[in-house]
Amino acid sequence: MPRWRVIGFDADDTLWHNEVIFERVHERYRTLLQRFHDAGTVDRTLFATEMRNLELYGYGIKGFALSAIETAIDLSNGEISAEEIRTLLELARDMMQHPVEVLDGAQEVLQQTAATHRLLLITKGDLRDQERKLAKSALASFFAGVEIVSEKNEAAYLSILRRYAVRAEDFVMVGNSLKSDILPVLALGAAAVHIPYPLTWAYERTVTVPDAPGRFFELKNIRDLLPLTRGD
Amino acid sequence: MPRWRVIGFDADDTLWHNEVIFERVHERYRTLLQRFHDAGTVDRTLFATEMRNLELYGYGIKGFALSAIETAIDLSNGEISAEEIRTLLELARDMMQHPVEVLDGAQEVLQQTAATHRLLLITKGDLRDQERKLAKSALASFFAGVEIVSEKNEAAYLSILRRYAVRAEDFVMVGNSLKSDILPVLALGAAAVHIPYPLTWAYERTVTVPDAPGRFFELKNIRDLLPLTRGD
Repeated sequence: MPRWRVIGFDADDTLWHNEVIFERVHERYRTLLQRFHDAGTVDRTLFATEMRNLELYGYGIKGFALSAIETAIDLSNGEISAEEIRTLLELARDMMQHPVEVLDGAQEVLQQTAATHRLLLITKGDLRDQERKLAKSALASFFAGVEIVSEKNEAAYLSILRRYAVRAEDFVMVGNSLKSDILPVLALGAAAVHIPYPLTWAYERTVTVPDAPGRFFELKNIRDLLPLTRGD
Repeated sequence: MPRWRVIGFDADDTLWHNEVIFERVHERYRTLLQRFHDAGTVDRTLFATEMRNLELYGYGIKGFALSAIETAIDLSNGEISAEEIRTLLELARDMMQHPVEVLDGAQEVLQQTAATHRLLLITKGDLRDQERKLAKSALASFFAGVEIVSEKNEAAYLSILRRYAVRAEDFVMVGNSLKSDILPVLALGAAAVHIPYPLTWAYERTVTVPDAPGRFFELKNIRDLLPLTRGD
């Protein structure tokens, strides 16, 4: 008998690669600013700008691009050229147009669990960008619902559970971020499966170890989800 | 007996002022670039950039800001300074932090129709920005549902009707844009009420006159919606 009735899947770095794209852009960004500051300063200042702007900009590439431009102006004391800022705009466009690389095993797991469970895609970030990635991934047909939210907190998950009329005990969330995919879901009494991704954005890192016996699982590969959801 | 069961309300320039904020920013933008080009060229080039980026960026202030920076670099042949680009970033932040000014009559109409109809807020644009405006407006409690979509087309409205299990003949959409609020809704067989706003973004302008006898209404003021929804 299947365990849980509804499975929520995170998207970025759970179903397809994302952080690696940001990582490559960070490398080019450090190179662009290396005549002004060392890589460590560039990284720290960009992250501080992103955090300062997060409440206003939210998640996603456009907010990242605006923060990257702001940081470049700050770190260069206004000496960065318009042409270099144009390069930043082009980097952002490249990120948005980047092909979607589905993670190994994800397609197969969605296909098999869709036959026994109701699947929801639950992701945060930019509306259009997430829709575009879902379309490019060719995974959309497996989902009974797609929820793009501005923040993955308890209130957002609660609203989704209500919308789909699913009880917390019938729901499990699968994702790579303890902060966004696991902790708020466990707090609601639902189950959560953590599948770490090799790279984690500093913002999503947390030292909190979930304490929810029987409701929290950590897996190495998304394929390990199949026996777990079957209740083997 | 009330006419229709569910009323969808557009947000920007239907419930609160929006285009006027963009209009003020356009004025400052023309001034910033006046040493390079005349106002007409600035307006036309910015609009062309926005249209070129629309598919990628979607609607909202962040995409507008990125297009405004790109246009400034183009129109100045790369001579715009980093400090001037910083001014553009600040303009964008000011827009996001702008107080929400609810349109005259909107609060009263929502309060009265919420007693007899199910109300949905249906808006396009940036997720976080629209949520923030709704929160600031103090109008959120009148709505049974809030739908922020990346594009207001037939597919988006159809998906909303399905999600709320409402038949087209039981639904009326109220908004200021013929293109986004009226035409796709009429195409689905539902009703639509156009309440023009004094300013209309060039993109939303359309010459198409809706032809849907008994399902299309044009009102001068949102207060005129009360007798219409009562079926007087």
